[in-house]
Amino acid sequence: MTTSHHDRAVLDPAADVLALARVLVDAPSVSGDEAGLADAVEAALRALPHLTVDRIGDSVAARTTLGRAERVIVAGHLDTVPEAGNLPSRLDGGLLYGLGACDMKGGVAVALRLAATLTAPVRDVTYLFYAGEEIDDAANGLGHIAALRPELLEAGMAILMEPSDAGVEAGCQGYLTADITVRGERAHTARAWTGVNAAHRAAPVLRRLGDHVAERVLIDGLEYREGLSAVAVRAGVAGNVVPDECVITVNLRFAPSRSARKAADYLRGLFPEEEYLTEVTEVVPGALPGLGRDALSSLVRVLGVIPRPKLGWTDVARFTAMGTPALNYGPGDPTLAHTAGEYVPVAQLRECEARLAGWLQPGPAERARPGGH
Amino acid sequence: MTTSHHDRAVLDPAADVLALARVLVDAPSVSGDEAGLADAVEAALRALPHLTVDRIGDSVAARTTLGRAERVIVAGHLDTVPEAGNLPSRLDGGLLYGLGACDMKGGVAVALRLAATLTAPVRDVTYLFYAGEEIDDAANGLGHIAALRPELLEAGMAILMEPSDAGVEAGCQGYLTADITVRGERAHTARAWTGVNAAHRAAPVLRRLGDHVAERVLIDGLEYREGLSAVAVRAGVAGNVVPDECVITVNLRFAPSRSARKAADYLRGLFPEEEYLTEVTEVVPGALPGLGRDALSSLVRVLGVIPRPKLGWTDVARFTAMGTPALNYGPGDPTLAHTAGEYVPVAQLRECEARLAGWLQPGPAERARPGGH
Repeated sequence: MTTSHHDRAVLDPAADVLALARVLVDAPSVSGDEAGLADAVEAALRALPHLTVDRIGDSVAARTTLGRAERVIVAGHLDTVPEAGNLPSRLDGGLLYGLGACDMKGGVAVALRLAATLTAPVRDVTYLFYAGEEIDDAANGLGHIAALRPELLEAGMAILMEPSDAGVEAGCQGYLTADITVRGERAHTARAWTGVNAAHRAAPVLRRLGDHVAERVLIDGLEYREGLSAVAVRAGVAGNVVPDECVITVNLRFAPSRSARKAADYLRGLFPEEEYLTEVTEVVPGALPGLGRDALSSLVRVLGVIPRPKLGWTDVARFTAMGTPALNYGPGDPTLAHTAGEYVPVAQLRECEARLAGWLQPGPAERARPGGH
Repeated sequence: MTTSHHDRAVLDPAADVLALARVLVDAPSVSGDEAGLADAVEAALRALPHLTVDRIGDSVAARTTLGRAERVIVAGHLDTVPEAGNLPSRLDGGLLYGLGACDMKGGVAVALRLAATLTAPVRDVTYLFYAGEEIDDAANGLGHIAALRPELLEAGMAILMEPSDAGVEAGCQGYLTADITVRGERAHTARAWTGVNAAHRAAPVLRRLGDHVAERVLIDGLEYREGLSAVAVRAGVAGNVVPDECVITVNLRFAPSRSARKAADYLRGLFPEEEYLTEVTEVVPGALPGLGRDALSSLVRVLGVIPRPKLGWTDVARFTAMGTPALNYGPGDPTLAHTAGEYVPVAQLRECEARLAGWLQPGPAERARPGGH
């Protein structure tokens, strides 16, 4: 049934946002397999005469070209993490359950509704529906657009419709992954004292991680709470061998005020080179909230919400790095992302749609939206 | 070349013990692949009229049947650990290098020489050349003989020609393997404080293992030094997830005065059930040295060596469990077993052969051995 949904997905952006979200959830689009859904999105948007549509790989861009003084990007990724027995969608007590309901087909449904109904927004809008966000950076559709059609990303600001509980989550933290290697000397366990047990020597590393009090960094009134976690420990040669190596993989989430380099220095300060072999395997800087910038502050005012810091990493960092102020605003509790039980509250779908429509096309949007909710 | 040696291995027990050891090393017989060597051993022994030969799987038993008052088992396993770029054999400065040279084709060469040359020993001898010692217990050829032809294991004592540096290693320690599981609660690393990191919580377990001072147990004047080692640590869900489980596999080597149950209790005493989930996955008791028993003490006297405790586990424990006093006596440094650089000193091959021959057949043995060394 899931497959047949996938094959036949037909999107009707004129439909109610909930109906649209259900169809999106029931059209599986796990990373790498977004083509079917991209086809459906492209077809639905091409049917709308007020939009100029481009297809880049399995990502779709749709723009109004009204010559407004301002242009805003509204973006959402089409892909989801793998299925976890959470299809088809299920509506229960005002909550829509199912794969990607929270991250982020709810947000995509809102964006599609806006694209279809806002025929004459007061700001030009570029809608981006992109592939490959949930996997490695090389697959990211925004990266592909930046490489192939950079003009499509030109805008005064960007709204990323990642789940933020219908509030504004500003900026995002960076992350760093590193391997801390503790060495020893192999020996037969029957003569363990002739060797040096690397696993035993890992105890102070794990204790230091456990004792570490992460910093809370205040930026633009937002508290970015950092975190340092062992995410993997690996040691073991054979059942009768004292291991000569123990590798602890750590993940550092750092406030956007730290650069990638400063984050690496921070970790090395905790695990000095004289004692530990620390290899940074990945580091991605965060994005400052930038709430002082006009474009963002006016939106935050109109939305009538108190901004919170974004603790996870999102493509807000990519826009910020390109010089485009960006924030996260979308339906769904971000802590439910990637869980089998993810859901999106129907009320948040409607609230996000109404508030963004009110900002982008104050008058007509109200008329264009179907009544009754 | 290795394969051709293997296919054509022809053993001449009348040859010098070094020549014999070289042919044995150059006939690969990794556990599970001992058939070719067992064929060669069987053929060589069947050519000797003073021996009664039996084949049990890929193990070979050869007995004198002289009606002596005493019967002694001389045993060695035919299999080796996997090749590690250490074939063919190489003679350098009086040391014979190559796969299994130390563990234990040197001992097998000595046993084959004794089988061939001692035509009228003062004690009846049962020579056992067996398969499957280096892998799991179910593969052990001695176990198969015990199940299928138990009468072949009847003897007053057993000499296991495992490497013991041409000294006597008495008894053997037991071993126990257990998994200590530390639990936590998963969380996204961007909100690490909402979870409990099981890897961080493993620090006190590893520290306790590192701080643990193993006991030294004195039995029959021999010091059995115990050991407790982490041999593996495993934690990790994904790069952005606080792990909810960390499993530390520990290996305890315990003195033969502890029973399997006491060894398990000892470990649980260190890691109380209230705090840790400890699952014993394997426990094998050791063997008391039994040097007070006549059979062993007379041999030790004749060999003229000071017994040492055996710290690793060997099939001495199997014989002891069957009620047969046993000890390890063979050429080669036991700490070199299973290393790529293993070797056996030629002088120890000759010494072991001469001393055992002198004990088993004081007069004729001297005449039967080729001169010149």
